[in-house]
Amino acid sequence: MTSDSPATGLPVTGLTRHRRLREQGSLDRADLNAILDAGFVCHLGVVLEGRPLVVPTVYGRDERWLYVHGSVASRSLAGGTPVCVTVTHVDGLVLARSVFEHGVNYRSAVIHGEARRITDPEEKLAGLRRLTEHATPGQWSYARQPNRRELAATALLALSLEEASVKIRTGAPEDGDGPDAALGLWAGTLPLTSVWGAPVADPALPPDIPVPGHVARREGTRHG
Amino acid sequence: MTSDSPATGLPVTGLTRHRRLREQGSLDRADLNAILDAGFVCHLGVVLEGRPLVVPTVYGRDERWLYVHGSVASRSLAGGTPVCVTVTHVDGLVLARSVFEHGVNYRSAVIHGEARRITDPEEKLAGLRRLTEHATPGQWSYARQPNRRELAATALLALSLEEASVKIRTGAPEDGDGPDAALGLWAGTLPLTSVWGAPVADPALPPDIPVPGHVARREGTRHG
Repeated sequence: MTSDSPATGLPVTGLTRHRRLREQGSLDRADLNAILDAGFVCHLGVVLEGRPLVVPTVYGRDERWLYVHGSVASRSLAGGTPVCVTVTHVDGLVLARSVFEHGVNYRSAVIHGEARRITDPEEKLAGLRRLTEHATPGQWSYARQPNRRELAATALLALSLEEASVKIRTGAPEDGDGPDAALGLWAGTLPLTSVWGAPVADPALPPDIPVPGHVARREGTRHG
Repeated sequence: MTSDSPATGLPVTGLTRHRRLREQGSLDRADLNAILDAGFVCHLGVVLEGRPLVVPTVYGRDERWLYVHGSVASRSLAGGTPVCVTVTHVDGLVLARSVFEHGVNYRSAVIHGEARRITDPEEKLAGLRRLTEHATPGQWSYARQPNRRELAATALLALSLEEASVKIRTGAPEDGDGPDAALGLWAGTLPLTSVWGAPVADPALPPDIPVPGHVARREGTRHG
């Protein structure tokens, strides 16, 4: 690849090949981007003295990089450390006739790579902007942006979006045309939806400060 | 400990000691159980050829053990393998006056241990029951339970609940009494709630089969 835009197809590697549930795999980069854009909390996995550690943290992205808030794992991330970042949206339960066919409707992205610790202040500021805007669009230009001291105190990791595995499961259970269909049991899905609520003002806030539009507009909209 | 019930306090070990954000740590086993009981999807971390792998999967529990559906990670789990299981509930965004003080309200449990692969059919059946009832209370006795062949084809891991780290963040941002309060910016939280939707029948289902009460009752209730 020599162009500026990444390939629209995700490369299949030893880490991202779908070994199981092949029908759920996607190699479309648009699916990866959609899953990442639908959330703001990921699970960051690192190896610490030979043992796995999985911590939740916030992220943002651009076309090539995932930016991950790295404080919680900073003691283990010297740079070039292999990490795994997983983003999962749970869309509902799949209730089949048999327990064996039960499952979950979900969308997940698993990104493998070596974490690069961002040290350049300009790059760190740009990454933090992505991260802030990813969680709350409009908030970067509304809130006070980081000063030099705060920037230095923030650990931000970058991870290439090149090597990723996407899985999506949707729809009904799969035992509707098997012998269990004759059992006469109800089967289907139970959807799960995440919704933004009404903004709650900080009790320390003077009463005359209005909720900004980019926050107020979110109430009642779907997340995930 | 010689009694049958686990300690109500979580032990502090090298893995679970809270190094950062100490104020968010909980050593109360009731908090751990509440976080586990509020969800059904965890993130399972393993080390695979020296690299971390984090995959979403379903779980259940009893007083001493976490049961994790292990198929996705089965190729890497020979038994006695160190694993890390993390359950996270995202309760909302913390929107402060400064970007630096932004955060997330959340509840998370990180469980460390060596995965034990369950081979005994009776124990596996009991574990699967916990897992099924955890996701959908009432479903185990409604659906057709696993036969011998299905049981053998199911990979189930058990992980001791002894070593766990719990973190909880609630409430308003923390820069309400600092110099940034004078900026006149709105600050507060934007809550996020997961809600169960209306059951969706499998299109293959005959129209005369009613939604069972334990599924129908869930509509409109909160998850997480």
